[in-house]
Amino acid sequence: MKLRRLWISLWFVSFSSLADEGMWTFDNLPLEQLEKKFGFTPSTQWINHVRQSAAALGGCSSSFVSATGLVLTNHHCAVGCLQQVSSAGKNYRKDGFLARKPEEELQCPAQEVSTLEQITDVTEQVGVATRGLTGEAYKNALNAVSATLTSQCVGADTAKTRCTLVTLYQGGLYHLYRYRRYTDVRLVWAPEAAAAEFGGDPDNFNFPRYSLDATILRAYEQGKPAVVTNYLTWSQQQPQSGELIFTAGGPGRTERLLTVAQLEYERDSVLIETLRSGYELRGLLTQFRTSGPEQARVAANDLFFLENSLKSSFGKLTALQSSALLNRKREEEASLKRFVADHPILCAQACDAWDNIARAQGIAKELGAEFGMLEGGRAFQSTYFNLARTLIRGVDERGKPDSERLPEFTTTRLPMIERRLGTPLPINNALEKLKLGWSLTKFRERLGTDDPLVMRVLGNESPEQLATRLIDGTRLGDNAVRKAIWAGGPDAVNQSQDPWIVFVRSIDESSRALRKRFETEVGAVQQKNAEAIAKARFQYLGTKVYPDATGTLRLSFGTVNSWSERGKPRAEFTDFAGAFRRHTGAEPYALPASWLAARERLNLTESLNFVATTDIVGGNSGSPMLNQRAELVGLAFDGNIHSLGGAFWFDPSSNRSIGVTSTGILEALRKIYRADELVAELLPR
Amino acid sequence: MKLRRLWISLWFVSFSSLADEGMWTFDNLPLEQLEKKFGFTPSTQWINHVRQSAAALGGCSSSFVSATGLVLTNHHCAVGCLQQVSSAGKNYRKDGFLARKPEEELQCPAQEVSTLEQITDVTEQVGVATRGLTGEAYKNALNAVSATLTSQCVGADTAKTRCTLVTLYQGGLYHLYRYRRYTDVRLVWAPEAAAAEFGGDPDNFNFPRYSLDATILRAYEQGKPAVVTNYLTWSQQQPQSGELIFTAGGPGRTERLLTVAQLEYERDSVLIETLRSGYELRGLLTQFRTSGPEQARVAANDLFFLENSLKSSFGKLTALQSSALLNRKREEEASLKRFVADHPILCAQACDAWDNIARAQGIAKELGAEFGMLEGGRAFQSTYFNLARTLIRGVDERGKPDSERLPEFTTTRLPMIERRLGTPLPINNALEKLKLGWSLTKFRERLGTDDPLVMRVLGNESPEQLATRLIDGTRLGDNAVRKAIWAGGPDAVNQSQDPWIVFVRSIDESSRALRKRFETEVGAVQQKNAEAIAKARFQYLGTKVYPDATGTLRLSFGTVNSWSERGKPRAEFTDFAGAFRRHTGAEPYALPASWLAARERLNLTESLNFVATTDIVGGNSGSPMLNQRAELVGLAFDGNIHSLGGAFWFDPSSNRSIGVTSTGILEALRKIYRADELVAELLPR
Repeated sequence: MKLRRLWISLWFVSFSSLADEGMWTFDNLPLEQLEKKFGFTPSTQWINHVRQSAAALGGCSSSFVSATGLVLTNHHCAVGCLQQVSSAGKNYRKDGFLARKPEEELQCPAQEVSTLEQITDVTEQVGVATRGLTGEAYKNALNAVSATLTSQCVGADTAKTRCTLVTLYQGGLYHLYRYRRYTDVRLVWAPEAAAAEFGGDPDNFNFPRYSLDATILRAYEQGKPAVVTNYLTWSQQQPQSGELIFTAGGPGRTERLLTVAQLEYERDSVLIETLRSGYELRGLLTQFRTSGPEQARVAANDLFFLENSLKSSFGKLTALQSSALLNRKREEEASLKRFVADHPILCAQACDAWDNIARAQGIAKELGAEFGMLEGGRAFQSTYFNLARTLIRGVDERGKPDSERLPEFTTTRLPMIERRLGTPLPINNALEKLKLGWSLTKFRERLGTDDPLVMRVLGNESPEQLATRLIDGTRLGDNAVRKAIWAGGPDAVNQSQDPWIVFVRSIDESSRALRKRFETEVGAVQQKNAEAIAKARFQYLGTKVYPDATGTLRLSFGTVNSWSERGKPRAEFTDFAGAFRRHTGAEPYALPASWLAARERLNLTESLNFVATTDIVGGNSGSPMLNQRAELVGLAFDGNIHSLGGAFWFDPSSNRSIGVTSTGILEALRKIYRADELVAELLPR
Repeated sequence: MKLRRLWISLWFVSFSSLADEGMWTFDNLPLEQLEKKFGFTPSTQWINHVRQSAAALGGCSSSFVSATGLVLTNHHCAVGCLQQVSSAGKNYRKDGFLARKPEEELQCPAQEVSTLEQITDVTEQVGVATRGLTGEAYKNALNAVSATLTSQCVGADTAKTRCTLVTLYQGGLYHLYRYRRYTDVRLVWAPEAAAAEFGGDPDNFNFPRYSLDATILRAYEQGKPAVVTNYLTWSQQQPQSGELIFTAGGPGRTERLLTVAQLEYERDSVLIETLRSGYELRGLLTQFRTSGPEQARVAANDLFFLENSLKSSFGKLTALQSSALLNRKREEEASLKRFVADHPILCAQACDAWDNIARAQGIAKELGAEFGMLEGGRAFQSTYFNLARTLIRGVDERGKPDSERLPEFTTTRLPMIERRLGTPLPINNALEKLKLGWSLTKFRERLGTDDPLVMRVLGNESPEQLATRLIDGTRLGDNAVRKAIWAGGPDAVNQSQDPWIVFVRSIDESSRALRKRFETEVGAVQQKNAEAIAKARFQYLGTKVYPDATGTLRLSFGTVNSWSERGKPRAEFTDFAGAFRRHTGAEPYALPASWLAARERLNLTESLNFVATTDIVGGNSGSPMLNQRAELVGLAFDGNIHSLGGAFWFDPSSNRSIGVTSTGILEALRKIYRADELVAELLPR
């Protein structure tokens, strides 16, 4: 018994008080802990102000930084926009951009910024809707209640409102999040890629670091800069060593509460496949890029995110290979299992949960390759595939009642889909052919030449021949064509002779069937049993724990603080002088001409990047970093190499987030980019 | 105690009698087992005849198949030669080759065939030389005794004789192997790559299979076809289902006797790094190949072997992820450890051996990346790097007594080195730049931009800039230049301004120091402790076990027999009809024009490929497959996907070797290639 009590306290400590750990929801912040450790208790006003100043931006984070709708995020979060507003003649990603007045600001197609307005606990409603159900019935009931709740939440105001059902604690809680949408977003300032991505892939996830990974956008309403009441004050003082710091943003996904069986599946199957295919695609794109400047331009985006994801996946694999991590997970799991076994009522709900999940993992392993290729679309890596499938499924699904649709096509999602279909998208057919031809060879390679599905897809064509035929023959690159099919409905889809529509139509039934099977035999089993484990965990540990990241808004806290590598402490800050020392003139260590020209003007000792102990992961990119007064002191853009294990646990000794200092951005805006109007807007007086 | 005895018998069974398992040395064949299971005991004459008919060929296997020096091997074992005798104008690899008379045969530069003439047990001599030594002293003593023994063995006849000290059973035995060398080897017949590599990478390691992966070379002596007394009779009858089959060849490397710590290191470090870098290089080469036919030609070889090695490494990783395999290894290890612990004398030598090896693995993990990059040359992937280092080190080492040299430069190795330096090598500078530039980026990526060695190597140059400077400026592509430096000795090396010589000179001291450290702290510890474990294992299991593969001649036995995949049995044979069914016209499923033209003439039911249970691995490619009368019935060229786990264990239920039938080759030679003279020579009357 002593052992167990000791164990409980150790575990609890590891989750909530020893370290600056946790990605906390705004409705359940660790206030006692903050008071105890830092003598600081944020007020309700502070909390609401920060929540509404922070803003989601695609898969990234951002924040409002002026009353006039200015939004600060990372350059790497805005590359989609930069790529879309560029063309063969104008490469804003490479060359940077500055609008000297609002009329020069460039609209980002398909970019959206949104703030979290309200959180409602709907655990009870979801529980009632799914009680006693399993498998497909459970999945369908969950989809239906989700569709109903989000639809009620959005109401008639689909243009300005978005709602999402958020599964917290693996189903221990269900919350309904209501967002205020800003769908007219424009580019105000972006530095050159050479400054934003200085150090490139070699320096990514490393520190010391010298990146100006920042970009400023502006939200518009009715054609005018949005007037916002909650925005962050830009601090003119850099953060201080040891200072308490907050990071507010949307960490994408952590897996800290997964079972050991799930972690092993991740280690042995998911990550290995990610690395195998990812590294090969990286080689392909790297070489494609050398064929000419236009190829370099169009491949830059894919390559940038691919390299980022590869480094991240490899870091996760390394973490999962560490026996320290997995042994701790095994012990935690064993401890919780013993607790559950000792409590008959809990046991009735959760004793089998781990075995059920492990069995589902076995099915996932068996179906995984085919599922990923077909329904996950990994066999058909082309923008056209996504467009064709959206048209075919969307037209079909929108004819059903909300509660019976695939969740991605419920009424509240349709506006975003229609926007994407209707927007001109820059598609490069050479790159499309490269990726599609290659991904079709992986499809054949992974499933085998004699696999019936492979035989059906390829017939007597080689992957390259099929890719060429589909891409040369399609008209889906034209948004008018897409809009016409969408408007034309089932008849337009069924009569279309577009090769992509014909092709995707021919496999969609198989793909849907596989998805249904996977969701029933794997997804639903995992979710239902994880829910049971989560509820048992609440009883074991109380509710003062934080949920795994879900891509929704969280607050992390910590201090400006470095770590040691092989016994040698790393610096906490870098400065402009360091960037010039690292400059060799060869990519990725070539500062842009603007920096070289501004060298004499710069305060070279001004800070550029810094590290803090705040617990963040991918998705937090673009998060504001705040001091106690809720002033913006930094802009999170990365974590160090040890932060990659943060997917599975938080190691306070080495896990660090990396940000650009607010003063570093100001120094660059003033002296390198001469953006005086913008600075005046950021620092009104 | 009962458990242990049961365990001993199970383990023993698994190693030597239940299955058709084992790569047996010719001096220790499992004769009793063969008699018991098949009622067949090969005579001494049979054994010696097969041993001397089989022949090593680079990293492959082969066999003499006529009194006139004809040598049969795989097409993929002869691609080095095919690539070297080809040029931009003539692509024999792609188009195939047939010499209608001896004068048309093309000499393969740097190709060597050798037969195993004698095996001598020198365990005693090696034991005396290394007794009581550890670390560097142990390593040096082992190198010295190896140099002395091989030098004595070769004697004055370096042209015709080659000797190697072979470490069997991880050091349980040391044998001296004496080979008869044939250094004038010429190309007689090769089919088109489209026939030899039909099915390409997707079908590699799979079955059913339809590859004519065969090539015929001829050994010459003094400018005339070699007259050989031991050669295999070509069977005109295909092997029969269930028939006893032997495979004689040189399996490269198995790791069935490694400790669990070593297997885990292989799984978590070595294989992951192999896959990460290998897949990326694959993507790079795949895209490079598309730039034009000449790029396709020069990249074909690298890509072929890279894809093969990737599939193999992934198969090994999959095997090591299986809990069945690792649990069995853990149990075997625990069982042997208990046995050792129970016997004080053994314990004194071996009780710590596992821990010592595990500690050495820890050091390997720490030094591994740097060691592989620098001394392993993975940072500098260029033919020029190898040439420059050979020149610099060879000139230095040959000035020392044999016993103090790096083992690869002892007197008996120099003739092969001089031959390679002096032979014109087809080097493509575009491909060299691609690989070198890329590998330098991996060097920076793995060790980090701030690593002192990386900083020293790159200075202010980017990887691409350094690669361009080295490759554009070098004259080492000219064999006359290489020969001059070699002849000029230390002065020529030290005064050379060739950028490659200058570059390699600048890092060689660091590289040698790292090698010394690695060999002392890792290699020597592993070898010495593995020796102790091996000796304990002999006491535990007796000597009727086989050693891990060491790239030297072995005999495997088994039967023509297929396996089941998800409950469905696979066929044992494929035929020509199947190849035509699989033909789509698109690579890699496009049969060559010669096949399409010959279709009407062919007996389409003639067998082409088959599977057998013989235990082989990489290195066995080109091995003759024999019936009881020692007649050639097949030519091994691959294993199925499950054979990849053969690196670590033999799973009799699914591990299969794949061969071309002797009759299939004859059918093709006669009816597709119209090689009547060659057939007459293979089937004399």
